[in-house]
Amino acid sequence: MAAMKLHGNPMSPNSMRVAAVLYEKELDFEFVTIDMKNGEHKKEHFLSLNPFGQVPAFEDGDLKLFESRAITKYIAHEYADKGTQLIVTNDSKKMAIITVWLEVEAQQYDQVAPKLIWELHVKPLFGIPTDPKVVEENESKLSSVLGIYEKRLSESKYLGGECFTLADLHHLPTLHFLMLTQVKKLFEPLPRVSAWVADITARPAWSKFLSNSSTNPISSIK
Amino acid sequence: MAAMKLHGNPMSPNSMRVAAVLYEKELDFEFVTIDMKNGEHKKEHFLSLNPFGQVPAFEDGDLKLFESRAITKYIAHEYADKGTQLIVTNDSKKMAIITVWLEVEAQQYDQVAPKLIWELHVKPLFGIPTDPKVVEENESKLSSVLGIYEKRLSESKYLGGECFTLADLHHLPTLHFLMLTQVKKLFEPLPRVSAWVADITARPAWSKFLSNSSTNPISSIK
Repeated sequence: MAAMKLHGNPMSPNSMRVAAVLYEKELDFEFVTIDMKNGEHKKEHFLSLNPFGQVPAFEDGDLKLFESRAITKYIAHEYADKGTQLIVTNDSKKMAIITVWLEVEAQQYDQVAPKLIWELHVKPLFGIPTDPKVVEENESKLSSVLGIYEKRLSESKYLGGECFTLADLHHLPTLHFLMLTQVKKLFEPLPRVSAWVADITARPAWSKFLSNSSTNPISSIK
Repeated sequence: MAAMKLHGNPMSPNSMRVAAVLYEKELDFEFVTIDMKNGEHKKEHFLSLNPFGQVPAFEDGDLKLFESRAITKYIAHEYADKGTQLIVTNDSKKMAIITVWLEVEAQQYDQVAPKLIWELHVKPLFGIPTDPKVVEENESKLSSVLGIYEKRLSESKYLGGECFTLADLHHLPTLHFLMLTQVKKLFEPLPRVSAWVADITARPAWSKFLSNSSTNPISSIK
């Protein structure tokens, strides 16, 4: 039995964010699928793992965590020596810059990306009409964010500096879904952003996670 | 001249968040007021500090940072030995729990609180009508969050554990403004949340910051 358990849903971007880190870190873990369709995330057992009733939740032995970005930060620090180094542990100024871009992902990019995924990817899957006003407003906001990323990526290869870090990785699940929609066109005029997306989505750990999760979402993501 | 500069606005919760940490840490800094009324935050000089054109921005010698929560985390780590200890540096599991509640502040509480402050505090100041639908929706969301805080605060004195940390502090500016509105009534039925609010808003560093900034918002916050 794996010591670590990720409770989540294979199609939830927040669950995928944690899985992406576990794959980069080459850590053994058990993926426990939460049956959200039947409201398992609102039942007592899951609420004891995350009182907000949202996936993912995470266990490492006795330690129970929730909020995807808190889980990824814990794994990156606790298992700093395993697999890909996703943070900087010996230079507080370099780490501060990575932290700025971690906050940008959470406070700027991710305030917009999930709304577009909801409108343009999830709603059509369920036959719910898309709201063009919400799409327009959020495409405009995303364009502004991506324009700033384009400039940032002219100064350094990755958002946090010269190496791939958690600040880039946190974007992977939402980028994956955005690229399945019309929003892809917003990326095309931006050469550095496009190269960054191509680079980080081609990482072997991410490809391995996607191929495992799409062939057998429940049992094979272990 | 102080080595650290906080560029911001004395009435911006995000600027206040950073100032609150600097006061707890008893660090000398210069508060540089950004004239937002005249769009200074969208002009080239400020955009070189924060490409998103939002306050605050921060300088510590050569290091330039933005995003309030990235700045506070940098200060808490870099100046761990100064003033109040706001993080745990020698126990990764305790720090992981603090990180969970830092994310809860950002991803749950702060997705709601600023909307209520906008509707119930800022709009009336400018004579703009409040949108009762937005208020109702966000009061309901805030009640849910506060209900979870009530339970959490029955398990530990503060959100992150037995000591006051950055996870509590990050709430201070928005709590300050919420308490000036009708939203105060949502806190009253919750004894542990009310005691927590009373405790953290009475901290000497916070009181000192508020009294300095309200008497002379521009020059005295140094």
